[in-house]
Amino acid sequence: MGSRNDYAVMRGAVEVLKEFGIAHEVRVVSAHRTPDLLFDYADSAVERGLRVIIAGAGGAAHLPGMIAAKTVVPVLGVPIPATALQGMDSLLSIVQMPKGIPVGTLAIGASGAANAGLLAIAILATTDAGLQKRLVAWRAARRDEVLAQAVGEEGVGE
Amino acid sequence: MGSRNDYAVMRGAVEVLKEFGIAHEVRVVSAHRTPDLLFDYADSAVERGLRVIIAGAGGAAHLPGMIAAKTVVPVLGVPIPATALQGMDSLLSIVQMPKGIPVGTLAIGASGAANAGLLAIAILATTDAGLQKRLVAWRAARRDEVLAQAVGEEGVGE
Amino acid sequence: MGSRNDYAVMRGAVEVLKEFGIAHEVRVVSAHRTPDLLFDYADSAVERGLRVIIAGAGGAAHLPGMIAAKTVVPVLGVPIPATALQGMDSLLSIVQMPKGIPVGTLAIGASGAANAGLLAIAILATTDAGLQKRLVAWRAARRDEVLAQAVGEEGVGE
Amino acid sequence: MGSRNDYAVMRGAVEVLKEFGIAHEVRVVSAHRTPDLLFDYADSAVERGLRVIIAGAGGAAHLPGMIAAKTVVPVLGVPIPATALQGMDSLLSIVQMPKGIPVGTLAIGASGAANAGLLAIAILATTDAGLQKRLVAWRAARRDEVLAQAVGEEGVGE
Amino acid sequence: MGSRNDYAVMRGAVEVLKEFGIAHEVRVVSAHRTPDLLFDYADSAVERGLRVIIAGAGGAAHLPGMIAAKTVVPVLGVPIPATALQGMDSLLSIVQMPKGIPVGTLAIGASGAANAGLLAIAILATTDAGLQKRLVAWRAARRDEVLAQAVGEEGVGE
Amino acid sequence: MGSRNDYAVMRGAVEVLKEFGIAHEVRVVSAHRTPDLLFDYADSAVERGLRVIIAGAGGAAHLPGMIAAKTVVPVLGVPIPATALQGMDSLLSIVQMPKGIPVGTLAIGASGAANAGLLAIAILATTDAGLQKRLVAWRAARRDEVLAQAVGEEGVGE
Amino acid sequence: MGSRNDYAVMRGAVEVLKEFGIAHEVRVVSAHRTPDLLFDYADSAVERGLRVIIAGAGGAAHLPGMIAAKTVVPVLGVPIPATALQGMDSLLSIVQMPKGIPVGTLAIGASGAANAGLLAIAILATTDAGLQKRLVAWRAARRDEVLAQAVGEEGVGE
Amino acid sequence: MGSRNDYAVMRGAVEVLKEFGIAHEVRVVSAHRTPDLLFDYADSAVERGLRVIIAGAGGAAHLPGMIAAKTVVPVLGVPIPATALQGMDSLLSIVQMPKGIPVGTLAIGASGAANAGLLAIAILATTDAGLQKRLVAWRAARRDEVLAQAVGEEGVGE
Repeated sequence: MGSRNDYAVMRGAVEVLKEFGIAHEVRVVSAHRTPDLLFDYADSAVERGLRVIIAGAGGAAHLPGMIAAKTVVPVLGVPIPATALQGMDSLLSIVQMPKGIPVGTLAIGASGAANAGLLAIAILATTDAGLQKRLVAWRAARRDEVLAQAVGEEGVGE
Repeated sequence: MGSRNDYAVMRGAVEVLKEFGIAHEVRVVSAHRTPDLLFDYADSAVERGLRVIIAGAGGAAHLPGMIAAKTVVPVLGVPIPATALQGMDSLLSIVQMPKGIPVGTLAIGASGAANAGLLAIAILATTDAGLQKRLVAWRAARRDEVLAQAVGEEGVGE
Repeated sequence: MGSRNDYAVMRGAVEVLKEFGIAHEVRVVSAHRTPDLLFDYADSAVERGLRVIIAGAGGAAHLPGMIAAKTVVPVLGVPIPATALQGMDSLLSIVQMPKGIPVGTLAIGASGAANAGLLAIAILATTDAGLQKRLVAWRAARRDEVLAQAVGEEGVGE
Repeated sequence: MGSRNDYAVMRGAVEVLKEFGIAHEVRVVSAHRTPDLLFDYADSAVERGLRVIIAGAGGAAHLPGMIAAKTVVPVLGVPIPATALQGMDSLLSIVQMPKGIPVGTLAIGASGAANAGLLAIAILATTDAGLQKRLVAWRAARRDEVLAQAVGEEGVGE
Repeated sequence: MGSRNDYAVMRGAVEVLKEFGIAHEVRVVSAHRTPDLLFDYADSAVERGLRVIIAGAGGAAHLPGMIAAKTVVPVLGVPIPATALQGMDSLLSIVQMPKGIPVGTLAIGASGAANAGLLAIAILATTDAGLQKRLVAWRAARRDEVLAQAVGEEGVGE
Repeated sequence: MGSRNDYAVMRGAVEVLKEFGIAHEVRVVSAHRTPDLLFDYADSAVERGLRVIIAGAGGAAHLPGMIAAKTVVPVLGVPIPATALQGMDSLLSIVQMPKGIPVGTLAIGASGAANAGLLAIAILATTDAGLQKRLVAWRAARRDEVLAQAVGEEGVGE
Repeated sequence: MGSRNDYAVMRGAVEVLKEFGIAHEVRVVSAHRTPDLLFDYADSAVERGLRVIIAGAGGAAHLPGMIAAKTVVPVLGVPIPATALQGMDSLLSIVQMPKGIPVGTLAIGASGAANAGLLAIAILATTDAGLQKRLVAWRAARRDEVLAQAVGEEGVGE
Repeated sequence: MGSRNDYAVMRGAVEVLKEFGIAHEVRVVSAHRTPDLLFDYADSAVERGLRVIIAGAGGAAHLPGMIAAKTVVPVLGVPIPATALQGMDSLLSIVQMPKGIPVGTLAIGASGAANAGLLAIAILATTDAGLQKRLVAWRAARRDEVLAQAVGEEGVGE
């Protein structure tokens, strides 16, 4: 993420990764203030064995796209609503990448951060049957929570 | 994709996959007109061994999100500019997924389709060193094309 | 509706239906977290004798469109402002349905929820003269409230 | 509809109604140029036995909302892309109705027009089992068209 | 204006008219809830001697356009930010009138309300030299307020 | 207007004024390229006896607002779709004036230009009963055109 | 800036200029309320020796563009989020200038104000090697702040 | 610029620079496809004696911001309308830079490109009185063209 402030949003990704016990690291790397660090980080991603990179950024939000430009490790981008435009600027900056350099973009804000974690897990799970089963189970638990709501809310009608 | 017409855009993904020799299938599945087919397709995705699903859709564009709701296989979504709103409707419908069900969203239109193919390849490449090398080489070739342009354009100045 | 949280908005529809004594049920059904429940609910809607379905959803808001894809019971959709985009995402996701599967869409938020209830009543009233009269009377009462305001506000000028 | 020009879009509704053999009438009524005709038309809608009114309009698009203000017959609105804003102006003008006066809004343009016809049929079908069966059959035919596409497109992959 | 709530915004117009001693009246007339009152009001505007009508409305905001459709008295429209879309819906509904029926539209919210009053005064002043002089003087006073600020702020620099 | 190119749009205003025989002048005055001319023009507007100024502009569209800043003659603004943003930039630049300096804004493009002419006539007509009658008659002719369409289109239905 | 209220945002530019010890002045000049002052200010800018002008404005935001129309001193514009549209109106008004009269536009709000100061410094630094070195050092300090965060945040992961 | 295709737009900047005889170079440098070239180019900009860098880019448009992140030479950005969103994506990506790294942003498309050239000249002119005089003369010539139009168009009225 581009700034310590972004952690309020990006925490959602970390929590999901922790819940699934996925090894991960959390870094503040700014495309604009620490471009060399960004390049070093992205350049070494393959050899360091990173499997997925989640990059969250607000405003002009160049971080995800520039990491993607420097590595073939899959990059997932999370737009952070940090300006008066409520994340619409970041969404467009992240998603509208030119042909050749993809960024898989998630929803603006906390939902997107959590989903970036979950998509990373789904990617890892394509070659890890155990993880895939746990992801299926996690989904089933979410489903059951909603089903419980459905029953509980039944009394709202008449 | 949701309609045969969408193939004009989605062809970009197919061409990339062919270029890399990635086994794939192309299906017309409509979230709204063939919802049962969509569910069957998504339900069987894991056991059929699909590693990534690329879903392109225009307008309300529910296809990527509904596939994602039914499988833990990673889903990549491509907004198709099929209405008067030029794909902004599809972009928001695809990317703004709620917590729990991610869709990795690419750019509107042909760039997004090609990039969905490339991101799928990058995902497969995380566990296939040979493929990863070919992806690195593909990138280098794109870079060299631009570098050649840079030299060629030098004469434009004075 | 897709989540218990949505009830803060969708309550407006329930209150209108109660005011008119229309039999109804309130369910939490999530397109993304409980897709099978959604399909079962929609599949059985005709035989259960449902005359109108009101579906409220935020963000990507696939619920109304997916119900509509699975039943010929008229579906009314209410965009809920649940994300940084203030319901614009939900509005476009709900209203921009492709040819073949309509969703009658109402305004974003509480006004839309109340109006979904009123439009449902208007639909039922097309074959229920008594209900139609009560709807006319309800409208007249709203008109009289405004007329009373008009008189009351007269003193604001000079 | 508000102008003869709008028929290029609204024709989609008429064709659907003809296909189902639904009695209907087509009128040019302008909220702004023939407001009295609009009021007379809406005022007499119940006694003339209209069951649903479909109103298409572009630009400021006051027609659907003003008809809805004058009758309890259900009103369906179709935004027509007639200005530089490509129908976004009409969509917001039609859908953002205040509490009390609903307009069930469909997609911008030709898809919305056809869907307005289909939603009207679905409304009529709630008390006409034969019509409902024909609507179910119509949907099944659309589904089969897509399924045929799916098979036909199979060869696109490899 | 369409509702008593709108007076919080429209008060700005009234205050300006009072400051200039312009005879005026304040009415709550809803396009959607009191359409007949709206028509009566607009129909009688010329004979009652109204010189300008200021109409403020939020959401779908049909009030200004429908008054304009029923009278040749100049109509000024003020978009009121009453929905999740912050007045953008009202702005487009008011300003995008079709050829033949103009509404002179002002800014969203309180600035627009005050300016509607000032534009009404400017219109009256085109045939009232005394009023025009007072308007010039009012403007000069505003200018002097800013000039005083300019001097006062001088110390902010260094 | 700010450029000779704008005349393709602004012609609509001129035609309406000619149709009503209103004395007028047409000038190319650019806020950005001829600011001093703009100031001279606006400064002398009252003494030259101008009753209304219609200003059309595209892009940043400062012309209407700057004229309004320099004269108390009523200013009507027409957004011209001259850029990639299709006039949305001009609409916001013209309509969002601060408290104190109103511009009565019309629709984007040709409809807005014609309506600026008609609103100018309506303003003049507030003190010219003959002109007002002719404006009423013009409106009635437009109404009759639509009514004739209504009859003509009757055969479209069945 | 156009109003004393804008100083809450524009303070960011002043602080940066003070930090670098750049001689500057702060003025309230309103395009709409003090147009003559604006013209005098801009007309005399070259001879007064101004090297860069930073203009912040909200709403219709004509100030930067009108200054630019009157001087060849480089003008930098800062959109201020002062209306319901959160600065999108100001951004478009400032940036969409016609060919011939450029305004270098910065981000909406406080970030943009600070960056206007920094861009002004960068411009001055192109002919002042000492200043350029201090700007490089300032940047390095910002980089080091982020690097420190990166280390500090390391413990967030696991 | 990021691609040879962008030269259709960016040509406007080159033509202006040629007209003024300003030494310049034209390069294709892609933020995403040639990130290392971008860094080398930006890193050496100061020592190579570049006084201003003009960067045009479409879509996600990271080029201007990333150059700015790597050099203190003033960077001017031109959004290019290369996608379905007509340059709105590029505008937001370029202008919404975070505090610390400014990009002076011009209008979308050809006007912006020409203006980037003119703003660059204005910057150089702040320390080159001869160039400043030529810029003043260029402006005066543009003004005279408009004045000539004004006279020529006089006959359009009556």
